[in-house]
Amino acid sequence: MKRIDGKQVAEKVIAECKEEIAALKERGVTPGLAVVLIGEDPASKVYVGSKAKKCEELGIYSKKIEMPIDATQEEVMQVVEDLNNDPAIDGILVQSPPPPHIDEDAIVRAINPAKDVDGFHPLNVAKLALEDPTGFLPCTPHGCMRLLEDAGIETSGAEAVVIGRSMIVGKPMALLLMGKAGNATVTVAHSRTKDLAAVCRRADIVIAAIGKPEFVTADMVKDGAVVIDVGINRVKDASKKSGYKLVGDVAYDEVAPKCSAITPVPGGVGPMTIAMLMKNTVIAAGRR
Amino acid sequence: MKRIDGKQVAEKVIAECKEEIAALKERGVTPGLAVVLIGEDPASKVYVGSKAKKCEELGIYSKKIEMPIDATQEEVMQVVEDLNNDPAIDGILVQSPPPPHIDEDAIVRAINPAKDVDGFHPLNVAKLALEDPTGFLPCTPHGCMRLLEDAGIETSGAEAVVIGRSMIVGKPMALLLMGKAGNATVTVAHSRTKDLAAVCRRADIVIAAIGKPEFVTADMVKDGAVVIDVGINRVKDASKKSGYKLVGDVAYDEVAPKCSAITPVPGGVGPMTIAMLMKNTVIAAGRR
Repeated sequence: MKRIDGKQVAEKVIAECKEEIAALKERGVTPGLAVVLIGEDPASKVYVGSKAKKCEELGIYSKKIEMPIDATQEEVMQVVEDLNNDPAIDGILVQSPPPPHIDEDAIVRAINPAKDVDGFHPLNVAKLALEDPTGFLPCTPHGCMRLLEDAGIETSGAEAVVIGRSMIVGKPMALLLMGKAGNATVTVAHSRTKDLAAVCRRADIVIAAIGKPEFVTADMVKDGAVVIDVGINRVKDASKKSGYKLVGDVAYDEVAPKCSAITPVPGGVGPMTIAMLMKNTVIAAGRR
Repeated sequence: MKRIDGKQVAEKVIAECKEEIAALKERGVTPGLAVVLIGEDPASKVYVGSKAKKCEELGIYSKKIEMPIDATQEEVMQVVEDLNNDPAIDGILVQSPPPPHIDEDAIVRAINPAKDVDGFHPLNVAKLALEDPTGFLPCTPHGCMRLLEDAGIETSGAEAVVIGRSMIVGKPMALLLMGKAGNATVTVAHSRTKDLAAVCRRADIVIAAIGKPEFVTADMVKDGAVVIDVGINRVKDASKKSGYKLVGDVAYDEVAPKCSAITPVPGGVGPMTIAMLMKNTVIAAGRR
């Protein structure tokens, strides 16, 4: 069983970004990423902080815009509009989730698609479906594809089962795997799937993105399968100082022995998401 | 075995359109559809003619714009732009395929998404993926969904296999079936799928959209399955006056006896495509 080391692959992506950034700087271009944080959600603060830190490490100009929890839709839209017009900024993201009075979809639609490094703008969603390489791929599914590629896993002709049908992971993952880049036979399974275990057992490659802690158990995975665990769930753990631990959507201890390759949580898909965000920012800067 | 009569369901859709058009006319709105034909392709002429005829039958204002085979990209773009600005026109379609010197994607992108009754504009592709009901669904997959619904076939929890991954049918069909409207467990199979027969045999519902005459044979279909045949292929037939006959992607005679329901070719999905085009035009007019 091969434990796919997401940290290591992410470092490789980061090293590629560094080279590309050096080349961009020779052309007089410094990539810039703006992150907008509305409110004080502690988890969001951590995410925004680690994105800024990664930018610093890479020599990407990073702009953090913190807005109060009671910021209005108009105020956020104005900030996005200003960033759209800011020539130093190549990528814009508004940290999710915003407070409930904010219409997140409207904000995503307001971002210039050429600066939408999250890949969530409708035009980039369409480009993914249309296999048009001028868009931005959403970071998490793109990271999963890169993990498979780097681990030397052949997707062409493979049976892949994606568990989950969200627009953040499940659907884009399925579109990538079924397109010319993946050439896999893709099944999308979800909460309404009958006999999910049997469907999963067909898979040469399982992508677990259902958001339920340790949902995928050993009986759901065939011998020799590859398992990519997208889940990041907090569960109570009295033995930890923090009182909780992070687990994936896969019951790692029982599933791993059956797999030919598997990603752990943490240290699997997680580090790839931020690495692909940096990659998208570099791509955006290269298109200036 | 139930033979799903596409003509009959299409007539039902047309009858609904008539009612909606009557209501629109009371509000002073006459729906308008513009069809642009470039060149003299005989099959395209037939399609354009039957769309115009259907409009007439329904009381939809129809505008046919015929352009010479050597029309330039700029000339076609100008025609689209004029139609975008024409308040009498709710729907615009440029008959596919245009001559090879024309960039069809650029033309589709130039159509106002609010008038894109074919549902091929990137914004409408995205809305389909995002399950945003303010877009337009592409006519053929939408027609297939309506056939299933009308025949009382439960898609929720069913195993559906879509053969083909084009953006005209395969991918949108998969997205519709896997979304909240379908709730099916969807597999997309294609030319790279290993053991396609075994994959198809899993299906409660088979959607054949691979563009190969009589490709789906009896050994690929499980007993009691529902088969929707999207293919329309011309094959030589010396016994016909025209020298050819139309067949689907399914070997109807051998597959039908195994099915609980199946669409014939012709008279299955075909009539639905034009009916859904009328539906989209009426929807567009309703949004004026």
